Amino acid sequence: MTEHAKKQSKKVQSTPVNKDVLLLFLSIFIIAALVLIPSFNHNVAAGMSAINAEASNSAASLSHFSTIYDTLKYERSIHVLAMLLVGFGFLMVFVRNHGYSSITATFLVVSIAIPMYMVIKSFGGEEFSMSTINIDTLLFAEFAAASLLIAIGAPLGRLKMDQYVAMGLLFIPAYIFNEWLILESGLFKGFLDTGGSIVIHAFGAYFGLGVVANTLAKFKDDPACENTPATNQFCLLGSMILWLFWPSFTSAIVAPERVVLTAINTIFALCGATFATYLFSKLIRGKIEIEDIANAALAGGVAIGSTCDMTTPGYALLIGIAAGALSVIGYSIIAPKLEALIKGTDTCGINNLHGMPGILGGIVAIFITGRPFVQLSGIVVTVCVAFALGKVSGMLISLLGKKEMPYSDEDEFFLAE
Amino acid sequence: MTEHAKKQSKKVQSTPVNKDVLLLFLSIFIIAALVLIPSFNHNVAAGMSAINAEASNSAASLSHFSTIYDTLKYERSIHVLAMLLVGFGFLMVFVRNHGYSSITATFLVVSIAIPMYMVIKSFGGEEFSMSTINIDTLLFAEFAAASLLIAIGAPLGRLKMDQYVAMGLLFIPAYIFNEWLILESGLFKGFLDTGGSIVIHAFGAYFGLGVVANTLAKFKDDPACENTPATNQFCLLGSMILWLFWPSFTSAIVAPERVVLTAINTIFALCGATFATYLFSKLIRGKIEIEDIANAALAGGVAIGSTCDMTTPGYALLIGIAAGALSVIGYSIIAPKLEALIKGTDTCGINNLHGMPGILGGIVAIFITGRPFVQLSGIVVTVCVAFALGKVSGMLISLLGKKEMPYSDEDEFFLAE
Amino acid sequence: MTEHAKKQSKKVQSTPVNKDVLLLFLSIFIIAALVLIPSFNHNVAAGMSAINAEASNSAASLSHFSTIYDTLKYERSIHVLAMLLVGFGFLMVFVRNHGYSSITATFLVVSIAIPMYMVIKSFGGEEFSMSTINIDTLLFAEFAAASLLIAIGAPLGRLKMDQYVAMGLLFIPAYIFNEWLILESGLFKGFLDTGGSIVIHAFGAYFGLGVVANTLAKFKDDPACENTPATNQFCLLGSMILWLFWPSFTSAIVAPERVVLTAINTIFALCGATFATYLFSKLIRGKIEIEDIANAALAGGVAIGSTCDMTTPGYALLIGIAAGALSVIGYSIIAPKLEALIKGTDTCGINNLHGMPGILGGIVAIFITGRPFVQLSGIVVTVCVAFALGKVSGMLISLLGKKEMPYSDEDEFFLAE
Repeated sequence: MTEHAKKQSKKVQSTPVNKDVLLLFLSIFIIAALVLIPSFNHNVAAGMSAINAEASNSAASLSHFSTIYDTLKYERSIHVLAMLLVGFGFLMVFVRNHGYSSITATFLVVSIAIPMYMVIKSFGGEEFSMSTINIDTLLFAEFAAASLLIAIGAPLGRLKMDQYVAMGLLFIPAYIFNEWLILESGLFKGFLDTGGSIVIHAFGAYFGLGVVANTLAKFKDDPACENTPATNQFCLLGSMILWLFWPSFTSAIVAPERVVLTAINTIFALCGATFATYLFSKLIRGKIEIEDIANAALAGGVAIGSTCDMTTPGYALLIGIAAGALSVIGYSIIAPKLEALIKGTDTCGINNLHGMPGILGGIVAIFITGRPFVQLSGIVVTVCVAFALGKVSGMLISLLGKKEMPYSDEDEFFLAE
Repeated sequence: MTEHAKKQSKKVQSTPVNKDVLLLFLSIFIIAALVLIPSFNHNVAAGMSAINAEASNSAASLSHFSTIYDTLKYERSIHVLAMLLVGFGFLMVFVRNHGYSSITATFLVVSIAIPMYMVIKSFGGEEFSMSTINIDTLLFAEFAAASLLIAIGAPLGRLKMDQYVAMGLLFIPAYIFNEWLILESGLFKGFLDTGGSIVIHAFGAYFGLGVVANTLAKFKDDPACENTPATNQFCLLGSMILWLFWPSFTSAIVAPERVVLTAINTIFALCGATFATYLFSKLIRGKIEIEDIANAALAGGVAIGSTCDMTTPGYALLIGIAAGALSVIGYSIIAPKLEALIKGTDTCGINNLHGMPGILGGIVAIFITGRPFVQLSGIVVTVCVAFALGKVSGMLISLLGKKEMPYSDEDEFFLAE
Repeated sequence: MTEHAKKQSKKVQSTPVNKDVLLLFLSIFIIAALVLIPSFNHNVAAGMSAINAEASNSAASLSHFSTIYDTLKYERSIHVLAMLLVGFGFLMVFVRNHGYSSITATFLVVSIAIPMYMVIKSFGGEEFSMSTINIDTLLFAEFAAASLLIAIGAPLGRLKMDQYVAMGLLFIPAYIFNEWLILESGLFKGFLDTGGSIVIHAFGAYFGLGVVANTLAKFKDDPACENTPATNQFCLLGSMILWLFWPSFTSAIVAPERVVLTAINTIFALCGATFATYLFSKLIRGKIEIEDIANAALAGGVAIGSTCDMTTPGYALLIGIAAGALSVIGYSIIAPKLEALIKGTDTCGINNLHGMPGILGGIVAIFITGRPFVQLSGIVVTVCVAFALGKVSGMLISLLGKKEMPYSDEDEFFLAE
């Protein structure tokens, strides 16, 4: 294989280095850093003063409790980081000969999403801006990164590395706009989506589908996406990491006394989805498809999002079973039809894992809020905004050219010989 | 390899889809969900009321402390989940061409064990039932899942997927019975087993051995279990995950002020076992056997269980050294004799990792409790109950038929071509 | 491959079992255990009394807060363990056919470093000794283990397993000496290094370079270090684990109210370094080198160490960008020159990841402390002490002989056939 790889390497045309774009990206990063300097940015300066004040006052119980609750949230923020990097990163390693690209893209979009979200949110009006030195802001930034990672699952394998970066730079403002529209603008008062079935999962999924819509013709004669037992093994690792840290995702920002309830509901939903995935994979296909296990088993986590801190374990188990079944049906039956409909390829099947189960979760919340109109209109608006902005982003990204070898590391990475 | 695998695939006879069994399993899950609905189940309703009451009262310090301690336990419950899925799951991936099955079986039995334990414990008398929405109940359910994962290590590779499910459904009531008998019935008052050397590790191990006892003839002409450097690499990942989160397993339910002591004792025991494993593997075998490193290094965690919150680091180091040595001797010398004795194959060597080191841990506790009779009789009873119920379960499971290709994914999974 | 490996195996000369050395090591472990027995060791006895006193008094708020803060630190200590084992362990798996050795060496040196640090620190004068049953002591011991793991990255692949053990036994006292000299002796008052850019990262790096200095001739005709996509994939897993738990490393011992600030600064530094790594790898080399992504992306975490709890996110992002760029320049341009200079091979490139970025971090701290002399002299002394003691250790280690097959598992492990 070594010799073979070497020869291959010579034939391969490298994707050219686009120096101007890279230097533009660098400038954006440096500017982002500069605008956060305390003397320019009230939100950073205020955060530092608060910490120093707290330090001089730390004997008071109240200050202790707020520090402790923040630190407990910090633990969950690390769990979410594990999901972002190892979880999503390795889940996307299943594409054969594309592991380096999947991992590097994950590293890059996380590194763009978190600072960019926090920089944008450190400006703007009083109801929009958030303290830059604050655990909640970090968690919201991580949610944005998760949504972006979901979105890149659709075009995965067909973008150059700098196109992932560009997609990240376009996605974050779009995500912040939708988040504001649905949760902060006051237009959808009473919309329930604690764990982000809609604003995180469905938004990311339909943004991603927007990016790939009408791109099928462009990649028509290119090699197809393949996987192997070895790459799928890494994918299953990513899947397990997502599964086990999911309770920290849904409980990240719930009220302190609801963390345990949220965790138990989330675990029950995941258990239900995992079991239903095995069952329906076997019933529908005759044998078990490992892609179902790696993905659909997580659909319970997606669907429980909206109601994670309000429902009870029995209902959570039922939601999970429904989500797992829906997701397997998505992978086995709906996916080919959808790809024909949008004329684009959804590499990771994000509609099956994040799209449809997310919408299911948003709809189930009606039983709790009793406000079908608010809930449904919030869902429809999110899906439309996501798809439309994704479509526009897809057109902008395509201006940066085309990856030389789809589903391959060879054109952008040195491969070991 | 691709072409080869493809050809193989055609020759392979798929394990038939047993629809009735699958639908029976689904019904069990749905019934489990229904019996937890608050209006039917006092334990769920009471849990929700308590949370809502706490919310309205969260200014009081006492309520804060209870919420905080619960959330700290929650963090440990996530660590234990990491052990269950990535730890046990990947530890069992060492079997060549059986990675999909090992991972899927792990996902499934965890998804069965946790809800089933919590459903059963939400009923029964006052001294038996536990609140369904409670972090302690979740932790006990995770312990049950750990014990079950230990047990499936014995027949690993020789069961069909639905037989793992059936084994889970039979195991959990057996585990709950033994847990009640030893810890709650009052018959073994003063029995010390904080971290579960006996009720978790030894119970799982001897239940698993019971399942495989007298099954050797059945699999006589089947291919043997193999491993490769690549599969062993994944196995070592599982081993490391188990090692590093083990302090959260032993300290999961200890008193808050004993968490740090328990963690330090556990780490010292693991360090001692790891070092002894290297040493005895080299001394006994001449070269290092990676199976020893992946497994016996963990024996310190098993053996420290009973006394984890009562002993001190020096003793913990000695217990760890003894457990590591015992476990290597188990893998290298005792295992073949035991397999001849019980006429069955112990795929993962659970007797060497969980059986004997667990018993060692239970015996060491005598130095702390000073009650040799209670301690020894608790051990003997657990081993006998586990083996007997395992034997019965093994016979029931075998009614579901026989896996077409032992130690292979091919008969139950689509393999990438 | 199986048959081939089998044949190879026969040709290979095993590294001989050095029984005396192994038994000496065992005695050291047992003595370490004995000196910690409470009746001999005041620090253990005092720790146990404190815990028992706390238990009887746990109603008081003050005692609650101290228990809670300790438990929050405990969570971070587990995160650091994840970095030590899975992070460093798998980062070192990139060497082809050397995975078992990398993982086993990681297990062993962690198992030596933690107890040894705590045993040594449980003796000595009042200003030197630390309570043995204490979360801070455990964290400091984990830092020592991290520094040792950095150091073994230099000779990785060219030491026998018992030489790693010997290197650990020599390293820990050297590390404790430097830690005392810089932070406790009072000679460098005002030296800022909260997250250990200097005392952990730079010390480990230059100790390791000392070990390999002047060893090139010895390994002249030996096979070279190779890597493959599969081994690099595991390496990237290690890298991600290090990345995501890094905030817990830097915030491990900061004041409670500074944990969130430290975490956000650390994440921003890592984001900056990750982005800069991609950019400079592509600009300097034309294609992306995966070794850069796996390593240089972490340089931000190394460099933010000294100032992690004092700076703000914007500056952190800039420090990260600088560190990432410096590290890529190290891997691509400086490394070959350095190896020629010291006449030794730095397998993992620890100078590029931990050495130079560590020094950068120490220098940046001058802007905060305003004490250039103290800061610079602390850096110079650490580098000199590390290199000199590393050189001496390297000479002592070489007395134990030479590994039969560099960069190979075959001489010390049974390989699956």
